[in-house]
Amino acid sequence: MANLPCLRGVFTPNIVPLDSRGDIDEPELRRYTSWLIDRGVHGLYPNGSTGEFTRFTPEERRRIVAIMADEAGGRVPILAGAAEANVRETLSACEYYAELGVRAVAIVAPFYYKLSSPAVYAYFKEIGDRTPIDVTLYNIPMFASPIDVPNVRRLAEECPRIVGIKDSSGDLPHMMRMIAAVRPIRPDFSFLTGWDAALMPMLLVGCDGGTHATSGVVPEITRKLYDLTIAGQLDEARELQFKLLRLFDAMIYSADFPEGFRAALTLRGFRPGLSRQPLAAEQKIDLELIRDQLACLLAEEGLADAPGAGCPPLGGVDPGQINRIVRSVVAEIRRQGSSVN
Amino acid sequence: MANLPCLRGVFTPNIVPLDSRGDIDEPELRRYTSWLIDRGVHGLYPNGSTGEFTRFTPEERRRIVAIMADEAGGRVPILAGAAEANVRETLSACEYYAELGVRAVAIVAPFYYKLSSPAVYAYFKEIGDRTPIDVTLYNIPMFASPIDVPNVRRLAEECPRIVGIKDSSGDLPHMMRMIAAVRPIRPDFSFLTGWDAALMPMLLVGCDGGTHATSGVVPEITRKLYDLTIAGQLDEARELQFKLLRLFDAMIYSADFPEGFRAALTLRGFRPGLSRQPLAAEQKIDLELIRDQLACLLAEEGLADAPGAGCPPLGGVDPGQINRIVRSVVAEIRRQGSSVN
Amino acid sequence: MANLPCLRGVFTPNIVPLDSRGDIDEPELRRYTSWLIDRGVHGLYPNGSTGEFTRFTPEERRRIVAIMADEAGGRVPILAGAAEANVRETLSACEYYAELGVRAVAIVAPFYYKLSSPAVYAYFKEIGDRTPIDVTLYNIPMFASPIDVPNVRRLAEECPRIVGIKDSSGDLPHMMRMIAAVRPIRPDFSFLTGWDAALMPMLLVGCDGGTHATSGVVPEITRKLYDLTIAGQLDEARELQFKLLRLFDAMIYSADFPEGFRAALTLRGFRPGLSRQPLAAEQKIDLELIRDQLACLLAEEGLADAPGAGCPPLGGVDPGQINRIVRSVVAEIRRQGSSVN
Amino acid sequence: MANLPCLRGVFTPNIVPLDSRGDIDEPELRRYTSWLIDRGVHGLYPNGSTGEFTRFTPEERRRIVAIMADEAGGRVPILAGAAEANVRETLSACEYYAELGVRAVAIVAPFYYKLSSPAVYAYFKEIGDRTPIDVTLYNIPMFASPIDVPNVRRLAEECPRIVGIKDSSGDLPHMMRMIAAVRPIRPDFSFLTGWDAALMPMLLVGCDGGTHATSGVVPEITRKLYDLTIAGQLDEARELQFKLLRLFDAMIYSADFPEGFRAALTLRGFRPGLSRQPLAAEQKIDLELIRDQLACLLAEEGLADAPGAGCPPLGGVDPGQINRIVRSVVAEIRRQGSSVN
Repeated sequence: MANLPCLRGVFTPNIVPLDSRGDIDEPELRRYTSWLIDRGVHGLYPNGSTGEFTRFTPEERRRIVAIMADEAGGRVPILAGAAEANVRETLSACEYYAELGVRAVAIVAPFYYKLSSPAVYAYFKEIGDRTPIDVTLYNIPMFASPIDVPNVRRLAEECPRIVGIKDSSGDLPHMMRMIAAVRPIRPDFSFLTGWDAALMPMLLVGCDGGTHATSGVVPEITRKLYDLTIAGQLDEARELQFKLLRLFDAMIYSADFPEGFRAALTLRGFRPGLSRQPLAAEQKIDLELIRDQLACLLAEEGLADAPGAGCPPLGGVDPGQINRIVRSVVAEIRRQGSSVN
Repeated sequence: MANLPCLRGVFTPNIVPLDSRGDIDEPELRRYTSWLIDRGVHGLYPNGSTGEFTRFTPEERRRIVAIMADEAGGRVPILAGAAEANVRETLSACEYYAELGVRAVAIVAPFYYKLSSPAVYAYFKEIGDRTPIDVTLYNIPMFASPIDVPNVRRLAEECPRIVGIKDSSGDLPHMMRMIAAVRPIRPDFSFLTGWDAALMPMLLVGCDGGTHATSGVVPEITRKLYDLTIAGQLDEARELQFKLLRLFDAMIYSADFPEGFRAALTLRGFRPGLSRQPLAAEQKIDLELIRDQLACLLAEEGLADAPGAGCPPLGGVDPGQINRIVRSVVAEIRRQGSSVN
Repeated sequence: MANLPCLRGVFTPNIVPLDSRGDIDEPELRRYTSWLIDRGVHGLYPNGSTGEFTRFTPEERRRIVAIMADEAGGRVPILAGAAEANVRETLSACEYYAELGVRAVAIVAPFYYKLSSPAVYAYFKEIGDRTPIDVTLYNIPMFASPIDVPNVRRLAEECPRIVGIKDSSGDLPHMMRMIAAVRPIRPDFSFLTGWDAALMPMLLVGCDGGTHATSGVVPEITRKLYDLTIAGQLDEARELQFKLLRLFDAMIYSADFPEGFRAALTLRGFRPGLSRQPLAAEQKIDLELIRDQLACLLAEEGLADAPGAGCPPLGGVDPGQINRIVRSVVAEIRRQGSSVN
Repeated sequence: MANLPCLRGVFTPNIVPLDSRGDIDEPELRRYTSWLIDRGVHGLYPNGSTGEFTRFTPEERRRIVAIMADEAGGRVPILAGAAEANVRETLSACEYYAELGVRAVAIVAPFYYKLSSPAVYAYFKEIGDRTPIDVTLYNIPMFASPIDVPNVRRLAEECPRIVGIKDSSGDLPHMMRMIAAVRPIRPDFSFLTGWDAALMPMLLVGCDGGTHATSGVVPEITRKLYDLTIAGQLDEARELQFKLLRLFDAMIYSADFPEGFRAALTLRGFRPGLSRQPLAAEQKIDLELIRDQLACLLAEEGLADAPGAGCPPLGGVDPGQINRIVRSVVAEIRRQGSSVN
């Protein structure tokens, strides 16, 4: 609602800890929730992509938000992912979340089917007209139908309960186009970026904050980057943005999303458990290596112990060198493979 | 199971008729099911992409299959889409469908997240090892994580209950690569194409059949194309394939999928109702035009009445000409727009 | 010209042999040209993508065609790639090729810039209206701006000297759409596929032939596949198509195009020399392995000697197995890498 | 060379004016060159993508640089696009440009063929080792093979004469990854962005400048944006960046590149002539409209006269509204089309 304060700052899209049977680990989720709040995140964002919302049942999604809202106890606002199978189910989830007292819901654009621009508009228009709670649009074109700038503008114009957009494209000019199109007609509209790698420049062109998966692992850093940028301490901010980029890249590109974030979370003392998406043997081996690399990165920031085997010197192993070694090994294996057979 | 006959022929991925409140219209779904069987489709494929499985709740997905299985009464085999939020939920759905006596289930590759090849393997491996019912892999790379050829081969080798693949990529050499990789080790494995536009050539390179959305609208034609091709009557088959291509293109490219198929279904005397995905005003206008075009195409085949306004001569309006007219109109509008303001 | 016979059959897009200084090796090019003709290809296609036309100067492109036309001496028709920097230069090349007596030229769609559909039309329209020689359009959307179906139809309708299209998309329904749109108004128009992996099914839906890079290496097989398909011996054709697919995949996906074809050519007794595109050390190692694999495939067909080290049994090494070995090696290297540093 | 100053600031990729016969209009090119220098651009960048280098002959490309170097007379440094058909031709062009006294050359990654990462490395390595003049890499992944971060690092490490990269991806985190990988080992290496839409944030994360097509049309604005950002006047810079974004979008997305820039250039009093890429009738109509829109945008900045018909109020016509009007017009046309025929 126009009367509520704008969405602003760093919202954390959290991993959901699971127990050994694959069920929601409520005590660990509560402990994690409070830990995040204690480390200064401005808000919480359950049922996001990092939160693997598609891998839970509708009942579980509700329960995750209920637990976190209860644990947060109003200390920080909650932005709850509320997308369900269709508009009716989504609106029913919105009602439930409204009763829990969350600040707003985030609705991802329709996925699986790639919808046309008018269809994306129609979907959000129906939700925006009937929602009992403030809504943020969630644009993540690598996973879901894109929400284009004219649609954002039209929805902002027609639906007062649509109060912001979370954009995970990482495309800076696109963010500027949205701001240019919407801010003149809706000064209260929030622009949140979901791409940690560009948080500082996004803030500098006018973003209000973001939902950042790194803040679920290193809330101290993401929050500090936000504060430094807002304070105009650009040299310090730039340095920290480069550090966060390194952490972000290590977590997001090393493994199937969000396994890198889950692996990093264990280094901060949590037990996220195993994903519901099964892992192949080679993925498990990879994740051990990734955990060591992440431990080294976190150790540099004083946020974790270095792995027992130690860390490579700063700058790390040259990936090109590794590739060259691997190629010759592969060549040798293939050569032997042919001759043996 | 190895003892059951291979999956072969034309399976129909059906639209689910909805009533005025947006609920499953059971009588219409039953009438439609029997109509399809009467017109010769070899099997039914509920909860496919055409069936908008993502827009129903888990309970509704079960109910759709239950209704259709009951109505079919064993007249044709059923391949039921069984993908749920995670492996546990999917296996639970498999058990339910097994009890209903369906022939097999189809499991779409994980979607929303784009998974790596090992992750896709791990997902199907866990299902393939624990399923109580035969499983077909469902590859639809435009909507879900791709299932690559090495994964198909490895799963076919390791999981006897994985008995086939439904591939909707429409990529003919890709189909050949799968056949070349799998058939030598699993002669019982079924290769089904989901791309109606290439049914004849797909059969000629070794496919066993397909799941074809056109067969939900013009079952007479899709079935006849299958029969002619299998019988080696290639000249007749080719001619029919070109006709089916025209129908397929008109239904699949004219509107957000599967609205073109829903519109066409009304022309065959069914009441599919409105989609759960809301339609924008411009989409509704478009759909009226599309319905007229489809009526003309179906009328040519003697399967529907021509629209009241009549049909364009064969070959139709030149789309280039329309585009040129539109461009000059747009130009004029823009010109007036500038001068008026 | 309408009076000339249609383009039909297998046209060979040839590699250009280079000598040790990187210049055109005229004697080897002549020997190769005659070898191809002797092995039954229906025509020659210099300056295609396989012929690396972009890596030669305008003068060299002319010289390549002049040498081959002279060597062919009218034994088979020549389709000469004639795209130059702009329309004026392209028309000048067309005049030159016309004087050489080649059958027609092939003009690739504009590349580097991705042009809109009207721009692609305008480009070919200007050439089509002013060319002194028959022109075939060359659609290769993975490298150049796509030529869409309405443009093909409009150009076929308006430009009598545009006599065909060579399409390397490998998209079978797309080929059918072009045939459906153009054949009724231009029965003389030729449809050639550039995607060897689908030659048989392409011919079965109505293609007239193709330009096939495999025919530059195994002309015996590509020609025989064409003959068997045209003769309706589908079982034999299918078997051969699967063999050709294996060869095609090995040559096209193993290395940067067209290095796989160049490597294979050495196995047929030619000295293609080194590419003008420099090779990295790892590429050179890879190419040795690829040559061995290709030698094994060609040996199976009696077209080359098996490599000294022998060949793996049919079906070959499981790539999954190799990947698993490599992964553990990489893991080990990384592990040592971390601890050593 | 290490002794020369770093490349820094705004380099202008210029359109090449053509006369009525389509030949290089030398007087206009000279006038344009001096006009740009007078308006404060830091350098000139002939034979870039905006300069349509692929549409000129090798001789013409040399002549363009010769004319501009002569006209510039050392007032500003020149970065000359030097990519030719292959390494030998490229090196020969480099020698020519070195003799002309240009500051450095820019070499676009290999295009047409999509090369692998090792092949891209090998290409630049050979050039970097043998060039007689400083080289900047030119990464433009939408048109040419991408130059990845490990390749940039390796080339920077091994080739002292490679002194910078011009990156037109517009991907801000990618730019940061390059800076993080290269600056520690090559503090003299220049990072130039080719994406005007993000100039300010690119500078704020550490870029040295850019090659900006907008600076060929509104050099005053692009230069001022650079100065304000460097001076840390971020509020003014942000405001100007939003204006430049609007101009950039209008020029780059309105027509086939670089027609929007050519149209805008006429508004600054130049006669760029017609492109060598022919225009379809509908493109010509579109360009008239675009010219009016651009005139309005330039008039706002006091850089051109408003069109005779006047300009829409700020914010402009709602494109959604236009779309809705057009849709109903199209619908009506189609309806009449069907009934008439």
